[in-house]
Amino acid sequence: MKIVIIGGVAGGASAAARARRLSEDAEIIILERGRYPSFANCGLPYYVGGEIKSRDKLLVAPIEMLRERHRLDVRIRSEVMSINRIEQTVRVQNLETGESYEESYDKLIIATGASPFRPPVPGIDGSRILELRDLNDADRMHTYATSGARRAVIVGAGFIGIEVAENLVRRGIDVTIVELSDQILPPWDREMIGPVDSHLRKQGVDVLLGNSVEAFDETEIGLEIRLKSGGTLDVDFAVVCIGVRPESRLAQESGIKCGERGGIITNEHMQTSDDNVYAVGDVVQTSCFVSSTPIQIPLAGPANRQGRIAADHIFGRDSTYRGTQGTAVVGIFGMTAAMTGLSEKSLKRNQLAYEKIYIHPSDHAGYFPDAQQMVLKLLFDPKTGIILGAQGVGTTGVDKRIDVLAIAIQAGMTVYDLEEVELCYAPQYGHAKDPINMLGFVASGVLRGDQPIIQVDTLSSYSAESLLLLDVRTAAEFAAGHIPGAKNIPIETLRELVSELPRDRKIATYCKVGQRGYYATRILDQLGFDAANISGGFQLWSNYSAHDNNATD
Amino acid sequence: MKIVIIGGVAGGASAAARARRLSEDAEIIILERGRYPSFANCGLPYYVGGEIKSRDKLLVAPIEMLRERHRLDVRIRSEVMSINRIEQTVRVQNLETGESYEESYDKLIIATGASPFRPPVPGIDGSRILELRDLNDADRMHTYATSGARRAVIVGAGFIGIEVAENLVRRGIDVTIVELSDQILPPWDREMIGPVDSHLRKQGVDVLLGNSVEAFDETEIGLEIRLKSGGTLDVDFAVVCIGVRPESRLAQESGIKCGERGGIITNEHMQTSDDNVYAVGDVVQTSCFVSSTPIQIPLAGPANRQGRIAADHIFGRDSTYRGTQGTAVVGIFGMTAAMTGLSEKSLKRNQLAYEKIYIHPSDHAGYFPDAQQMVLKLLFDPKTGIILGAQGVGTTGVDKRIDVLAIAIQAGMTVYDLEEVELCYAPQYGHAKDPINMLGFVASGVLRGDQPIIQVDTLSSYSAESLLLLDVRTAAEFAAGHIPGAKNIPIETLRELVSELPRDRKIATYCKVGQRGYYATRILDQLGFDAANISGGFQLWSNYSAHDNNATD
Repeated sequence: MKIVIIGGVAGGASAAARARRLSEDAEIIILERGRYPSFANCGLPYYVGGEIKSRDKLLVAPIEMLRERHRLDVRIRSEVMSINRIEQTVRVQNLETGESYEESYDKLIIATGASPFRPPVPGIDGSRILELRDLNDADRMHTYATSGARRAVIVGAGFIGIEVAENLVRRGIDVTIVELSDQILPPWDREMIGPVDSHLRKQGVDVLLGNSVEAFDETEIGLEIRLKSGGTLDVDFAVVCIGVRPESRLAQESGIKCGERGGIITNEHMQTSDDNVYAVGDVVQTSCFVSSTPIQIPLAGPANRQGRIAADHIFGRDSTYRGTQGTAVVGIFGMTAAMTGLSEKSLKRNQLAYEKIYIHPSDHAGYFPDAQQMVLKLLFDPKTGIILGAQGVGTTGVDKRIDVLAIAIQAGMTVYDLEEVELCYAPQYGHAKDPINMLGFVASGVLRGDQPIIQVDTLSSYSAESLLLLDVRTAAEFAAGHIPGAKNIPIETLRELVSELPRDRKIATYCKVGQRGYYATRILDQLGFDAANISGGFQLWSNYSAHDNNATD
Repeated sequence: MKIVIIGGVAGGASAAARARRLSEDAEIIILERGRYPSFANCGLPYYVGGEIKSRDKLLVAPIEMLRERHRLDVRIRSEVMSINRIEQTVRVQNLETGESYEESYDKLIIATGASPFRPPVPGIDGSRILELRDLNDADRMHTYATSGARRAVIVGAGFIGIEVAENLVRRGIDVTIVELSDQILPPWDREMIGPVDSHLRKQGVDVLLGNSVEAFDETEIGLEIRLKSGGTLDVDFAVVCIGVRPESRLAQESGIKCGERGGIITNEHMQTSDDNVYAVGDVVQTSCFVSSTPIQIPLAGPANRQGRIAADHIFGRDSTYRGTQGTAVVGIFGMTAAMTGLSEKSLKRNQLAYEKIYIHPSDHAGYFPDAQQMVLKLLFDPKTGIILGAQGVGTTGVDKRIDVLAIAIQAGMTVYDLEEVELCYAPQYGHAKDPINMLGFVASGVLRGDQPIIQVDTLSSYSAESLLLLDVRTAAEFAAGHIPGAKNIPIETLRELVSELPRDRKIATYCKVGQRGYYATRILDQLGFDAANISGGFQLWSNYSAHDNNATD
């Protein structure tokens, strides 16, 4: 068996190592265009920022290890120019010598990844316009960051843009982020990511939303950037990270089927439309684990597993890929944003029915020092209660809760299951009723009709005649800020004062985060009022309205 | 509906609050013997140690809140003396006035908890012998800890004993722990908890295993403790925490069915043998979620959920308790030990078939700063691969992995599912192949026959004639310490030197933690040798042998 793998990072390297474990006899050739197979892609921003001090740390599987330990024929600086599927050969160019040759294969694995998209903007190919895909890019950015650069623009506020922003700030550089959409970190829902946006700005990062670059003009001393909004920015360099495109040219030119957005189409064994050709990692179009629709999400975990699965299938095993769930996490100056499954916007895009709730628990028991608040959003099927997606934003303990929910989604669990799960509890680690249980309690309460809720984003559709806003916090909390037009009756006195409430209108109760509002709803509901609790309470309302530049009255 | 609840902490308080949410009309009476309903039980050791500075912090649901917000009739210092099930009344004594009265009920909930066991040792009732169950106990210990006490003995190395030890050390007190069994933290398997034992000793805690107290002799200035081993210890005070017993006397005296170990027997709705009487929390005998056998595990999470379920059932809902999984976590001077499901010893006790593996991953990517190693043990069904239990010991990221596995157990997942799960990954949070995936890869490999393993605890059953120990680490690692009798061939040169290996013996390969040993097994297996990898590698062997006071040759 002779296996040729194009690309030696995440998916390609995993496929090669797995193939060797399955067969001592197989000839396994890795053709890597760059100098470094299996480098730590996700560490590049932190090397630029100095968090990872030694560049060698990024070379997680040095070429000698791949050669000696796994007997892999690793050829660096070797670019595949074309695939001949009939002859089962690839044409390889040695980028050092310029020579090229044919290499035959029994099975071919395409792991070419995805390349940063460069929009057709004047000046985009200038020398001061960087991207961050490989070690070479990281070296260039590292040089800028450590040799006197003072200002930088980052185009695109996705994962990489945000991570680069943090790391350039760590180097003392003034950073402006220019993002086309109306939020940073577009995979998250906008109201969830608001606190991260504020936090970024507090660290001195200038965030320009709904804006884009019209032109990059290189000057003698730097770069002038013309914005769509009209202004200009003078910086030392720019980093373009507005997303990636599957690097599927080789596959397309050889007639292998690709999806609309360019990703190579494979079956569940990572086999392409050609039985002898597999594709893994960021270059493939995969399907969403939750909605089963085609998606392209560049993630390291799926790439690694796909590599393993392709190797398994080559050696006659029926390992299958279950689809990508979209579990992701990003750190932002000590904050954490994590998500799994579908976002609300992708549920809408896919026209799937959903219900949603928000809670604001602390990472561990409030009576133990340093409890940190987070916000969690749960999306679930309104009929079955099956969990569709979850998002979390906070500091500590967010990744833990999203990992737990990622497993719950994998297992097809419902919100009713979350009520019953038994998680680690000691006061410095969690709660006797963990945030995961709380999500279950609240969501199940909504589905059972115990806990009617009303969403912040629907409030504006009600008139004052049809809806009374009832703030059940204390008078002091109310005085410090509330939703315009709300009436204040603290929960403790609600039972005595129900006569002040109208029976001809819906009553939307709220408190800081939702718990007292829920209690109020329970009381009013039993007394025959039409009450519903604002999910996420005043805090979530504030996130929404901060974004829309509203103020409390 | 008139509900009387005996005991106002975890389970009782949850039942009361839930009952109120389900019914505004119900009369809900909480009879609490102490002064504080709903105090933060699990925070007591940290109040003693000063981590939690304010005592008020422990009063998580002050009595006023229960009264005003939930309209609960909370009566403190009110002890129930007897239950009359025929009349449906309880006799209550007011501990302040000494007066007693009858209180009738429609439904009764017993939430009396469990009380610390006091062994029949001479002097055990002395004034310098403390326990830690309630705020009163915590106050006494706090006084000792902050008024010049210099030495203390803790009897029992369970959760509370260990937490108290840490907190007394924080107060500058010399602590000796006396534990009857051969390990600290008995719920964990011994080889897993070894690193915690060493860590405790490094902090200056003296740990005496396999020992017990023969007598407590109060002296003029302190306490002299006579040990079974023969020595004596002079201390200022002692803390006895050798476990708890369900406080089920009231139930037993009124003819409600209890289990062999004293816990009240309930159905899945927390209903006792009397339909009008429920029991929740540490006073009940529940069943193990995994093995379905009767168990008594005092845990806050289950107590809270049981309270909720009892209230639900009283109001006609069919909420059911699924059984206790035994998910637990404890912090020890910055280390974390967590577990879920069955331990190896409880699997043995229940005569259930199992397979086990060990891995030693870091909490996050090794190339990112501050990666911390942990050890994870996975127990699973050797036929189906269903996960039966898991344990983890390390610093950061341990509770996360055990929580994820707790959900996997709830969902009935197999080790094959763990291979495929998609968890949060960025270098500061995890791995592209998370430790959870690695557990899946290794365990599935064992079940598929790809990865034959051999357990450290079986090595001694082989003779040198029947087994060759093959250390595949580097010569330098080998020189620094290895298993006695092992031969060293680094993995990189193994293929060249296979002729040196015997074909008439089993070969047990090992490396530091198991990965290179696995690669070696793959190579040897394909070359026709009878090879198996030592699960957990040299590191796990060291844990075992440190315990047995063996040394490397």
